[in-house]
Amino acid sequence: MIKRLAAEFIGTFWLVLGGCGSAVLAANFGGDGNPLGIAFLGVSFAFGLTVLTGAYAFGHISGGHFNPAVSFGLWAGGRFPARDLAPYVIAQVLGGLFAGFILWQIASGSPAFASDPSSAGNFASNGFGDLSPGGYSAAAAFLCEVVLTAMFLVVIMGATHSRAPAGFAPIAIGLALTLIHLISIPVTNTSVNPARSTGVALFAGSGAISQLWLFWVAPILGGLIGGMLYKWIGPERPEITGHG
Amino acid sequence: MIKRLAAEFIGTFWLVLGGCGSAVLAANFGGDGNPLGIAFLGVSFAFGLTVLTGAYAFGHISGGHFNPAVSFGLWAGGRFPARDLAPYVIAQVLGGLFAGFILWQIASGSPAFASDPSSAGNFASNGFGDLSPGGYSAAAAFLCEVVLTAMFLVVIMGATHSRAPAGFAPIAIGLALTLIHLISIPVTNTSVNPARSTGVALFAGSGAISQLWLFWVAPILGGLIGGMLYKWIGPERPEITGHG
Amino acid sequence: MIKRLAAEFIGTFWLVLGGCGSAVLAANFGGDGNPLGIAFLGVSFAFGLTVLTGAYAFGHISGGHFNPAVSFGLWAGGRFPARDLAPYVIAQVLGGLFAGFILWQIASGSPAFASDPSSAGNFASNGFGDLSPGGYSAAAAFLCEVVLTAMFLVVIMGATHSRAPAGFAPIAIGLALTLIHLISIPVTNTSVNPARSTGVALFAGSGAISQLWLFWVAPILGGLIGGMLYKWIGPERPEITGHG
Amino acid sequence: MIKRLAAEFIGTFWLVLGGCGSAVLAANFGGDGNPLGIAFLGVSFAFGLTVLTGAYAFGHISGGHFNPAVSFGLWAGGRFPARDLAPYVIAQVLGGLFAGFILWQIASGSPAFASDPSSAGNFASNGFGDLSPGGYSAAAAFLCEVVLTAMFLVVIMGATHSRAPAGFAPIAIGLALTLIHLISIPVTNTSVNPARSTGVALFAGSGAISQLWLFWVAPILGGLIGGMLYKWIGPERPEITGHG
Repeated sequence: MIKRLAAEFIGTFWLVLGGCGSAVLAANFGGDGNPLGIAFLGVSFAFGLTVLTGAYAFGHISGGHFNPAVSFGLWAGGRFPARDLAPYVIAQVLGGLFAGFILWQIASGSPAFASDPSSAGNFASNGFGDLSPGGYSAAAAFLCEVVLTAMFLVVIMGATHSRAPAGFAPIAIGLALTLIHLISIPVTNTSVNPARSTGVALFAGSGAISQLWLFWVAPILGGLIGGMLYKWIGPERPEITGHG
Repeated sequence: MIKRLAAEFIGTFWLVLGGCGSAVLAANFGGDGNPLGIAFLGVSFAFGLTVLTGAYAFGHISGGHFNPAVSFGLWAGGRFPARDLAPYVIAQVLGGLFAGFILWQIASGSPAFASDPSSAGNFASNGFGDLSPGGYSAAAAFLCEVVLTAMFLVVIMGATHSRAPAGFAPIAIGLALTLIHLISIPVTNTSVNPARSTGVALFAGSGAISQLWLFWVAPILGGLIGGMLYKWIGPERPEITGHG
Repeated sequence: MIKRLAAEFIGTFWLVLGGCGSAVLAANFGGDGNPLGIAFLGVSFAFGLTVLTGAYAFGHISGGHFNPAVSFGLWAGGRFPARDLAPYVIAQVLGGLFAGFILWQIASGSPAFASDPSSAGNFASNGFGDLSPGGYSAAAAFLCEVVLTAMFLVVIMGATHSRAPAGFAPIAIGLALTLIHLISIPVTNTSVNPARSTGVALFAGSGAISQLWLFWVAPILGGLIGGMLYKWIGPERPEITGHG
Repeated sequence: MIKRLAAEFIGTFWLVLGGCGSAVLAANFGGDGNPLGIAFLGVSFAFGLTVLTGAYAFGHISGGHFNPAVSFGLWAGGRFPARDLAPYVIAQVLGGLFAGFILWQIASGSPAFASDPSSAGNFASNGFGDLSPGGYSAAAAFLCEVVLTAMFLVVIMGATHSRAPAGFAPIAIGLALTLIHLISIPVTNTSVNPARSTGVALFAGSGAISQLWLFWVAPILGGLIGGMLYKWIGPERPEITGHG
């Protein structure tokens, strides 16, 4: 179990360091209007590639969840035992927080960030209303996070089903996360992952913390819906396995 | 059969929500000239990734068509029974419409969209002439949709053939859709899928609806051509299977 | 044999329609400075995805060359019989020309292109000196095309070797072509494929035709070098097969 | 052994030619503010695709390291014999230097580069402080290179483990390098590979050479940490193999 938790810790560290790191360090390089930065498209690929690479590296150890909403959703879908939920979620949150800490150390090495951390945006935190990149309302943010997390779980459940082609699941799941970011960065900066939201919110300041509840409730609700939806729609004989 | 239709409904929902959603919410983020948005390149990846991920998730349930032109083309190619055409197409169109509805709800959470829905373009609808992103004529639009849908079916038929490497078809098919968008977003905003066109046209207004006929006729015609073309060129012994 | 040649014709048609089509129609959408267009990055993906998708669709029929330099290189590497060289190359060139023709029809549906075809650049033709996107000399263009085509063949030979993982070759080969475009669009607009160069040069005007010799000589020379290089470096027992 | 070293030489040549070549020739095409260039996102894909394609081409010959930090890390992880370290590293550095030489020849064919080589940036060399793209400090650069190289090795060790799905490792490893560049180009221009840094530093001038030590020490330190970390966390029975 300790190795599985270490894998979840490191994998979630990788997800937050890579996804949020690309957003903080590289998305808007050179300031407004400079096309050299990786922009939302690059951040979308970064998030997806953390999961794609992490699932190939750790899938055979822990199942490669890296996300409390995924663990809850797989439980709802009959693929993950309830007794493992708490340790997995704790390991994921700790990994996300450690990534936020390391990312802050790296970002602080830039004179611009050191003098004004808000110059890199809100440290890649998630938000709605005034803290939404596009000013989206709390209702739109909630709906968006629920629907996209539900579809994320449907893809995870389906791609890891024993009837799906073996070995391809990390590609499908990682690129599903890229797709989700392509849709929803303007809405909430895209969470679908409470550990990712928590990992940077503590460093982003009071605004992000005060909105953090939505990025626990909506993704987990969506995950439960997605897990149950695929359980109903999918072929018989679901088995207890991770998504690696 | 009900599970297969549910899979087509959800898969087409995912295609329209992801592809059109990325276009409406994220393509032109921040307004003209802002390089942060995902632009046509990001939208192209989003459409392709909906199919890549959906085919891994649902291919083993319904074959993963998500597109009336694909269902017709696979029928023409001898891979899909005529009796399933109508229920598949109905499920696909309903899934597309549900995606259009959910997308409208999310988009309406933005003050800019709520005050002026046209600020996000024409709700990702397809069009020609005045409604073509690049002002392309109806003839060019028709030719473009026929040719690209035909090639889409050729790739689908070939990549799912029993002599092609097993398991890779969703990658080939999804990225073929990305490629098709890279070519033709300026021409018609890219359909090659009547369910996708219908799903957003009803929300985009009378202009898109009046041109909707072309995005049923041309993709289905192209699909039939592509299915028959591969049937002639491909190896013997085609079998009845989906493309998952 | 007729089916193999039809596969090469259609596959090369797809390569030129998709790669050059994305460049002509979508690369610089909206004019200079507009970030919505797919730019060189999108064109690079488009070229690569034509080969990735075409190789999954046609690899089991013709080997999926779609390129005279590939056919010559595989011959030099002991993987392709000399007697098939001429028919393959003819089918490839005809496929490229048909793509140039169809692309011209679609592009002409745009008022801007119809009134001034040069508004879309030089119809995606290859060139050096004044016709190089970045003004590169003939010597730099020649060196660049030779080296990149040689490496293309090394990847093709290696990824299709019987000791390489089965089924992944189209991914490796397609994305190698994407990589080659990421490097060299500014130098020559990237050929590494005489059929691609020929397919659009006839429509691009006299300048492109007068420089076409380089895009036959350099890629084929590079292909021969690459095929022989891998033959020397690779494991024993090369076999006669295509790269699908 | 000579064939294995030739594979490492050519593979590292490909990595530096493709990754640094795309940066020098295509990243900032047309000058500041021109969105046609491939920008940091394109360079990130280019680096990753050199490894993805090289690993499919050469993985079955040499293991496909192309990077001294990878060779050291695999040694620390118990996957690579100590006696092969020196010849592998020498072949890698020579391949990188040859790529720097060829790239200089091609770049010199551009009038702009010929008259002022610094117009293409610092020849894609790595740096910190004044030579960091974003002005990051030496401490931040060191931390960033150590952490990212460590995670690179964790992905390599995990994706090539006998329990991971066979054949997918080049995808996971190549796209991990893409991800690493998406995060850290602004910090150090991204090394995680001493051979890549050395290959261009000799052509970039005295500044890059004076900082080259960091791009040997930090990546190799990170590689050792990553190799040992996975060895502890991973399943039993590690075996001696390369990552192809």
